[in-house]
Amino acid sequence: MRLEVRFTVESLNDLELAGATVVVVDVLRASSCMVEALVSGASGIYPTGSTEEAIKLIQSIGRDDTLLCGERRGEMIEGYHLGNSPGEFTPEVVKGQRLIMNTTNGTRVFAAVEAADRVVVASFLNLGAVTRAVDGADRVLVACAGRSGAFALEDVMCAGHLVRRLRATGAEPFELDDGARAAEALTDSFVIEPGWLHDTESGRALLALGLDADLESCARLDVHDVVPELRDRALRARHGS
Amino acid sequence: MRLEVRFTVESLNDLELAGATVVVVDVLRASSCMVEALVSGASGIYPTGSTEEAIKLIQSIGRDDTLLCGERRGEMIEGYHLGNSPGEFTPEVVKGQRLIMNTTNGTRVFAAVEAADRVVVASFLNLGAVTRAVDGADRVLVACAGRSGAFALEDVMCAGHLVRRLRATGAEPFELDDGARAAEALTDSFVIEPGWLHDTESGRALLALGLDADLESCARLDVHDVVPELRDRALRARHGS
Repeated sequence: MRLEVRFTVESLNDLELAGATVVVVDVLRASSCMVEALVSGASGIYPTGSTEEAIKLIQSIGRDDTLLCGERRGEMIEGYHLGNSPGEFTPEVVKGQRLIMNTTNGTRVFAAVEAADRVVVASFLNLGAVTRAVDGADRVLVACAGRSGAFALEDVMCAGHLVRRLRATGAEPFELDDGARAAEALTDSFVIEPGWLHDTESGRALLALGLDADLESCARLDVHDVVPELRDRALRARHGS
Repeated sequence: MRLEVRFTVESLNDLELAGATVVVVDVLRASSCMVEALVSGASGIYPTGSTEEAIKLIQSIGRDDTLLCGERRGEMIEGYHLGNSPGEFTPEVVKGQRLIMNTTNGTRVFAAVEAADRVVVASFLNLGAVTRAVDGADRVLVACAGRSGAFALEDVMCAGHLVRRLRATGAEPFELDDGARAAEALTDSFVIEPGWLHDTESGRALLALGLDADLESCARLDVHDVVPELRDRALRARHGS
């Protein structure tokens, strides 16, 4: 099994992805919201790269049973139905709904990896389910969203734990790129304990917006068994095996 | 002192750099070659982003006492005077010469950071001299070249050791971005010992081209006291204090 980790959206350009399984990670907060939304019964999530693309899409697929969600500079976008906090995606709000989502970093990744054979979404919430879902793949590339071009520690920690778990259960021999080696090594240096996300750059930016509850939500490990998987432009629930 | 580390050329876009001191790192091999060339008495090194730009520049500044150097896919470019191996930049060849250099990753960084107050070049060869040269800065951003968009372990290790040394000697309080925290932490996981570069992705690519000697050259720590610094579009020697 070949394991690769890319740390930012920008580093995904011109990547050869035929045959690859891509795992998209944006712990704070897009991938955590996607998992919560599918757990709560959303019928599908359409990731889009911009508000313009989101508006165009809702005009094309129709407004019935469709919600616009996402953030710009961390806050809900004017005219949208939902922001980007996991706690908003309750069954009362999203069950049976199609979600069109765009966020600053996370949703842009999907356009960059559309050539992959398979695209799934990981967060701490569903890390075990993702590990099982991609375990048989020849090549797994973890695409971290990062933070406006920079490294985001929480994404790379999620990637590192996925690499570590796959190495414990997957098919040898393993071939790791430098990014996967580094991500795995970093899981020794930064301990996932209550409140650890508060000390990351993304975490501090959310705290400054009063979004403390989001950090608690996104830090929970292995609480859901759902793997968002891209099919026909939308992420749909695949339940862990 | 604020310390930031960016891991790839691609992650430097749209960065606010006014007031920043940027340290460019491409251990294998551009920044190592730049140090060797200035130690050997080259009068200046013009980093360029492409062969087209290099050819245009030599037509503009003239061919007298000017050498074209660099690589594409790891090998010397047709019509160039020199490749990208540190051992080529001897006093016999480069003393008093202007060098126009373009490489796959390293030289592209300079265009991305031209808005910085100050731009210097680090490799393992001159790490101590660079540490002293940037020690009083308010904000140091280490710009790693990376490897065609991906993380290159040798660059991030060089960045991590720079962060570690600055934290030992620089002015408190320190403020580290996630990239700087991760780079520093990785210096605990990967030990700089003879032959360690052979196991990186860039190292393996150079071994496949028979360039084993370059790996030995670039792995030497603190052997030169010269800091290449950008002035008037060219890197010129600043001697460590």
